[in-house]
Amino acid sequence: MATVAPPVSLNAALREISAEMDRQFDALLPVPDDPRANLYRAMRHAAIGGGKRLRPLLVFATARLFNVERIRAARASLAIECIHVYSLIHDDLPAMDDDDMRRGKPTVHKAYDEATAILAGDCLHALAFEILSHELTHPDPHVRIELIADLAHASGPSGMAGGQAMDLEAEDTSFDLNTVTRLQAMKTGALIACSVEAGAILGRVTDAQRTSLRGYARDIGLAFQIADDILDVEGDEAAVGKALRKDGEAGKETFLSLLGLDRAREQARRLVDQSIEHLRDFGPEADLLRAIARYVLERDR
Amino acid sequence: MATVAPPVSLNAALREISAEMDRQFDALLPVPDDPRANLYRAMRHAAIGGGKRLRPLLVFATARLFNVERIRAARASLAIECIHVYSLIHDDLPAMDDDDMRRGKPTVHKAYDEATAILAGDCLHALAFEILSHELTHPDPHVRIELIADLAHASGPSGMAGGQAMDLEAEDTSFDLNTVTRLQAMKTGALIACSVEAGAILGRVTDAQRTSLRGYARDIGLAFQIADDILDVEGDEAAVGKALRKDGEAGKETFLSLLGLDRAREQARRLVDQSIEHLRDFGPEADLLRAIARYVLERDR
Repeated sequence: MATVAPPVSLNAALREISAEMDRQFDALLPVPDDPRANLYRAMRHAAIGGGKRLRPLLVFATARLFNVERIRAARASLAIECIHVYSLIHDDLPAMDDDDMRRGKPTVHKAYDEATAILAGDCLHALAFEILSHELTHPDPHVRIELIADLAHASGPSGMAGGQAMDLEAEDTSFDLNTVTRLQAMKTGALIACSVEAGAILGRVTDAQRTSLRGYARDIGLAFQIADDILDVEGDEAAVGKALRKDGEAGKETFLSLLGLDRAREQARRLVDQSIEHLRDFGPEADLLRAIARYVLERDR
Repeated sequence: MATVAPPVSLNAALREISAEMDRQFDALLPVPDDPRANLYRAMRHAAIGGGKRLRPLLVFATARLFNVERIRAARASLAIECIHVYSLIHDDLPAMDDDDMRRGKPTVHKAYDEATAILAGDCLHALAFEILSHELTHPDPHVRIELIADLAHASGPSGMAGGQAMDLEAEDTSFDLNTVTRLQAMKTGALIACSVEAGAILGRVTDAQRTSLRGYARDIGLAFQIADDILDVEGDEAAVGKALRKDGEAGKETFLSLLGLDRAREQARRLVDQSIEHLRDFGPEADLLRAIARYVLERDR
């Protein structure tokens, strides 16, 4: 039984999991010799060779706490990353954020066209649930159902897509800090939390462990978004690989506009400390999760 | 135990199931008192009070063969209809078929805006799988997983969305009859087949019964599409509730353009006869399925 490997450095883990995700997507999306070739090329364009793979890293880092088989963590990661990639494709569309660049490459509707981008997103969305429903993900259907229920909830109107809908309204309304916090907890926090939860579900954790891991995930999700807001103002477009400073131009309230740079930085640092504190009952096997929490704050893209 | 009611007339069943679906969507989509109100209104606009509800009708008509509890058929129907409605919202977008009217009402991107339409579709997509993952749909997780796997496959790149991607290419390429048949088997046939399959999964049918029901579903799916092509040319826009004669204008090959009206009609009639023949081992409990097969051909919208 090949279990998730023992703790490694964050950089080694990031490299290893990026390569693993590229392999998984390559196997998932063979370009067919029929009129759907463009659709598959568009999905591959968005899914392969880019991104931080933060969500898969969280699945693996959590799964390693409980000696979960590697293939199971890889499949759960693949499903969550399908949802993440579909959301990026749709968010970049002209009717949404209208972005031309993503991960240093043209966005899907630029490299292909809008119709193909909409359908590529829809296909990745369906594939996420097809992957989770398969017994390769876990032999016990109770576990698969729990993964599916969690991902569907985290990505729907009470999670990611609901947060994105709130974000649309943010251009016309001045949200307060509570509303921005809730918006971000849904828009990016829900899928980050779902990644940790997936590792926990596969590991069949105790209730106490689950509570700790949920606290960890909630705090790094929020810290991630604050760091994103800071990167949006201070970051380098070439390093980040997409257009920056659009929220300010659109008049959207962010953690930065509401808190100011110093307080936002302090708040993010406090959240990272707090997330690590949630892991106090875990030993060195949780060092990768701790390293991810610090990375969330220090990354430059 | 409230089981699916005994055979009724097709018209009564259509009315009853339309009302049931409207009730289900009303309960699924309460408008929240937060910035997502527009998103929920958009989903309700698309989901409530319209459509033939052919797919739910097929779930119920199949489930009634096996005395499936009514609530289970209703929930499986709701999930499949979520997928159908999301696909209509996305297909109507300006980048896709660019339709202003659907079911006699403005399309979602007309009544709201494009961004809201994209997200409303994405949310209904996620809700479909959230509904199926819940134990109210069926207490046995094996049954829920089977429903989920089937719906994910039927709606993804090997089913509905893949067929829609082929349809995009149809404007630039002259497809032959085989390719048009495959395109339509995916674009509309897959979800129709999935509806019958869902009833069969809930009914825990024998392999022989499943083979018969699959044959039935395949044949009415194709007959449905041929009838749709005929309606597109001969139908009344007011009755159908959307713009017609767009395929011809776009230069797309259809069953009608490839076969001509007489042969297309004859082929649809033959498919309906054949679909009913697949039901020969079922008694009067399958009369509703037989009536649906005839209705597929004779409908005027």
